[in-house]
Amino acid sequence: MPRRTHKPTLSNAARPATFTVDAIDENGATIPTPIAGEHPLTIYVDKREILTIMTLGAAPEALVIGYLRNQRLLESVDEIVSVQVDWETNACSVVTKNGLKNLDEKMAKRTKTTGCGEGTVFGDLMADLDNIRLPTDIKISRTTLYTLLNNVRLHESIYKQAGAVHGCALGNVSGEILTFVEDVGRHNAVDAIAGWMWLEGVGGSDKIFYTTGRLTSEMVIKAAQMGIPFLVSRSGLTEMGYSIAKRVGLTMIGRAVNKHYLLFTGAERLNDG
Amino acid sequence: MPRRTHKPTLSNAARPATFTVDAIDENGATIPTPIAGEHPLTIYVDKREILTIMTLGAAPEALVIGYLRNQRLLESVDEIVSVQVDWETNACSVVTKNGLKNLDEKMAKRTKTTGCGEGTVFGDLMADLDNIRLPTDIKISRTTLYTLLNNVRLHESIYKQAGAVHGCALGNVSGEILTFVEDVGRHNAVDAIAGWMWLEGVGGSDKIFYTTGRLTSEMVIKAAQMGIPFLVSRSGLTEMGYSIAKRVGLTMIGRAVNKHYLLFTGAERLNDG
Repeated sequence: MPRRTHKPTLSNAARPATFTVDAIDENGATIPTPIAGEHPLTIYVDKREILTIMTLGAAPEALVIGYLRNQRLLESVDEIVSVQVDWETNACSVVTKNGLKNLDEKMAKRTKTTGCGEGTVFGDLMADLDNIRLPTDIKISRTTLYTLLNNVRLHESIYKQAGAVHGCALGNVSGEILTFVEDVGRHNAVDAIAGWMWLEGVGGSDKIFYTTGRLTSEMVIKAAQMGIPFLVSRSGLTEMGYSIAKRVGLTMIGRAVNKHYLLFTGAERLNDG
Repeated sequence: MPRRTHKPTLSNAARPATFTVDAIDENGATIPTPIAGEHPLTIYVDKREILTIMTLGAAPEALVIGYLRNQRLLESVDEIVSVQVDWETNACSVVTKNGLKNLDEKMAKRTKTTGCGEGTVFGDLMADLDNIRLPTDIKISRTTLYTLLNNVRLHESIYKQAGAVHGCALGNVSGEILTFVEDVGRHNAVDAIAGWMWLEGVGGSDKIFYTTGRLTSEMVIKAAQMGIPFLVSRSGLTEMGYSIAKRVGLTMIGRAVNKHYLLFTGAERLNDG
């Protein structure tokens, strides 16, 4: 796999993922209970405040890079000089080579079109859909899918302890997990995977994207934008997620747990056996 | 209960909640599968575009009113002349008496502080917290909690059919459900309940707010802003949700299913028996 020579300078500022508090159960017993962290992180790019994200803080540098990527504010990881997260001030400072692309225009557009159901630049995402071409020559078998699902089951950590998080995994077509991220928001976890892919120079065309979250329009659009032909979820899907998956030719599988699943679109990429 | 004399003129434009598509299961069988609707709805207030929400569309008028309420763009339902939803154009047109309060300032603030993990005006919400006083003289029993949980179990409809939605219920202190809303986003369902409360002239001080979703910071803030002292969830919570609930003195109960629960904060409002 080709690796990039350029890498931005990064902090390594993951937060503790869980905190334990005392709860009282229905029998009056005190139960020490792990709960997921949730922290505001304000992103500054070249000293300008962009927005505040609520995050678990497990992979904050990758999250911020992936956010800038998925919002189309940067075209390449090569444009990033450094990403420094400081939890004393709940701030992430990003330095770029040449500034963000069309920032004012995108900020204005975001203000108008942010989906409050989804929390991101919806107008922009939809507009780019017609340029997406997903590979048609790559297939996986059911056995590979089951292997990936089993690997995810063994991998999840914060969810098992504390719940209240969503997990995303990037798998290869052998069903191996390349990276796994949990966060308090579905779309944060996706963005962190997108950031990791840029940092590691990993492309999407021969990958499987797994999420514990629902397959809403935004999830499908992001997977397609990342060039990933397979999208797999433990949960269900929405009508718009379904329509977009059909339109871009994505292979979308829902309700995937153990050896059960429902294949909704793109059946040609899933082989028997 | 006092009822308002003023009511805005409303359309009654609920969308069909589910659509059936064919999926293929692990045995190769074709399974007709209901999936939840998801539609963009662009809000215009006095002809100015505010934002686009992705919604199931089950209670669009209440959703839009509750959004404007929870974003503090309006102070009273009396300021609303009409709310008209048109699914031909995916538009909701709101007419107010005197315009929105500090719209430009709030729009600018949103641009900077929108939590992408949550998708709303986080900065504003936090700033108002210290003004919130929740009633201390109201209590419920465990039996009331169990009654409410059983009523929710019997009520949920779209989730049972199609999954991929979150439900919210507003209950009274007898455990009866006053209104129940499902939507593709947790915060949409909350906003629709807030809109319903305004339309019906219902206050929060003697109510229980139930959600299937996780108790993140935003959910706790919204419940507190609506003046509701009890917040109950089927799911878990985050550290920040916990901290805010403690700070505002909310009674917060998680993992509430059947006759099990974990009480996290505000134990003084839950009686034995």
